[in-house]
Amino acid sequence: MQDFPVARNRLSLFGCIEAGGTKFVCGVGTGPDDLRCTTVPTTSPSDTVQKVVEFFRATSNLSAVGIGSFGPIDLHPESPSFGYITSTPKRDWQNFDLAGTLQKALDIPVGFDTDVNAAAAGEARWGAGRGIPDFLYLTVGTGIGGGALVNGEVIHGLLHPEMGHIRIPHDLEADPYPGGCPFHQDCLEGLASGPAVKARWGVPANELPPDHPGWDLEARYLALGLASWICTLSPERMILGGGVMQQAHLFPKIRHELLGLLNGYINAPALLEGIDTYVVPPELGNRAGVLGALVLAEHIYRNPSARIGAPLAGESAWR
Amino acid sequence: MQDFPVARNRLSLFGCIEAGGTKFVCGVGTGPDDLRCTTVPTTSPSDTVQKVVEFFRATSNLSAVGIGSFGPIDLHPESPSFGYITSTPKRDWQNFDLAGTLQKALDIPVGFDTDVNAAAAGEARWGAGRGIPDFLYLTVGTGIGGGALVNGEVIHGLLHPEMGHIRIPHDLEADPYPGGCPFHQDCLEGLASGPAVKARWGVPANELPPDHPGWDLEARYLALGLASWICTLSPERMILGGGVMQQAHLFPKIRHELLGLLNGYINAPALLEGIDTYVVPPELGNRAGVLGALVLAEHIYRNPSARIGAPLAGESAWR
Repeated sequence: MQDFPVARNRLSLFGCIEAGGTKFVCGVGTGPDDLRCTTVPTTSPSDTVQKVVEFFRATSNLSAVGIGSFGPIDLHPESPSFGYITSTPKRDWQNFDLAGTLQKALDIPVGFDTDVNAAAAGEARWGAGRGIPDFLYLTVGTGIGGGALVNGEVIHGLLHPEMGHIRIPHDLEADPYPGGCPFHQDCLEGLASGPAVKARWGVPANELPPDHPGWDLEARYLALGLASWICTLSPERMILGGGVMQQAHLFPKIRHELLGLLNGYINAPALLEGIDTYVVPPELGNRAGVLGALVLAEHIYRNPSARIGAPLAGESAWR
Repeated sequence: MQDFPVARNRLSLFGCIEAGGTKFVCGVGTGPDDLRCTTVPTTSPSDTVQKVVEFFRATSNLSAVGIGSFGPIDLHPESPSFGYITSTPKRDWQNFDLAGTLQKALDIPVGFDTDVNAAAAGEARWGAGRGIPDFLYLTVGTGIGGGALVNGEVIHGLLHPEMGHIRIPHDLEADPYPGGCPFHQDCLEGLASGPAVKARWGVPANELPPDHPGWDLEARYLALGLASWICTLSPERMILGGGVMQQAHLFPKIRHELLGLLNGYINAPALLEGIDTYVVPPELGNRAGVLGALVLAEHIYRNPSARIGAPLAGESAWR
């Protein structure tokens, strides 16, 4: 494990933002035991950003700010729209330079990543991903999104993962609900997000009784997603957060379905004997995202080469 | 890009093995233009390994050997069975210490990874993955397997990816073939591997006429897999090799299905405008695996800390 300079860390105060479609959760602090938060509603970019900037300006000695944002966003340092929210359905926010606007207004380094990558980074640092170089963080709420660490680094690649949109088997006889994704209809998000639960059963997930058969279906769909990600990413742990996962009774159902789907093929004790610690809720609860954004702030503070406008970092040892 | 000492590279001769279920392809050389190969049939471990050792002993100055192996295999350096083939259905090979046996017999460092991770490393070094830190290599043949680079490093995690075993939608009315995977029945491998094509249509893939509707179905299934991996790994390229992919007419079909499935959601020019260079065959053809094993040999030669019995390497910067 890399040994960060703890003394400097204690002196550095960071800002963090979990930028969501309905609200921006903003924080200032140094970690889970020292984080002062406020919430700004997501209205127009100018109005929201102004309130966010006011909050951070009230703290005089911030070293950097991190943003975990709704998307899609541009994460390519060499791109002219690096730091932008790009093709979101929220029209006011389309092609808005969120990271750059804050960087200019606050004149400090700004770390920028997806909301779920940020949450994964938060769980890696202070939560259920501590010491685990390969794990998945999934949020199941208004949408379904995933962030993953592979060899200790979050996945970016071409764009960034959009895990909720994988296709899974959908038995229309057992579940006639056609799915609600405007792009893919019955992808995982289309079948198992909060709005899908509500559209199928007529009540929001938090009002569906724990013994309702809808939860078995929900567990089945989520387990189908987890099984695909196990086969693809080989994670050492899967952390499931978000509004729908607040129903704690879902966890044992999902674990049971998952073991059935894998059918012993992934022959690893962590799975076969340790499923209760393999599929888990986030230790940081609903603060995973905003605390993860704090990790992004720290990371950008310590890695000047990753900042907006900085020269590109080196590549891999494989070539 | 890391600058390897080329002069030393030219003086170092490496051995490589693509260890498959029917044959071990063994090579000695320095790269694609300088590789002398031989083939040893996969019989019993003692017999096969003896012939492999004889081949390498005939070259006096090997610096290291790399193995890309069929699996499942143990890739955890801290595990007592590191370097073993583990729970393979081939009984003679179960729990066989392939890497350790060769290391002892040849007394040189041995690099060890899955056959598809090796092929990915080969394409990263000399093939269609050059300069691309995030890409997928898929083989479609007797089985379906994937290796991927994420941030320039191959995925290992809990075990190693078993990508062929992801679940995909299967319309039993359109395709009554129930699937042939002994573990999961109609996972991707169960529906789209070479043996599945043969079981469904009664002839091997290479005898199925190019205008047979079976190819549309095959392209659909493979595109469903690719779509899931795009949403999960966000690769910048997907390289499809293996026996079934020798049918070049499959590529345009797969590209067409894939764009339809994604439906514009992944808004990246590399995909939307460059699909012909996004889904491609391996540039190293059927030598991707054995040349990739050569990269593993080089890698272990230059990274003593990754060798069998070496102390563990450090962890990520995220915590």
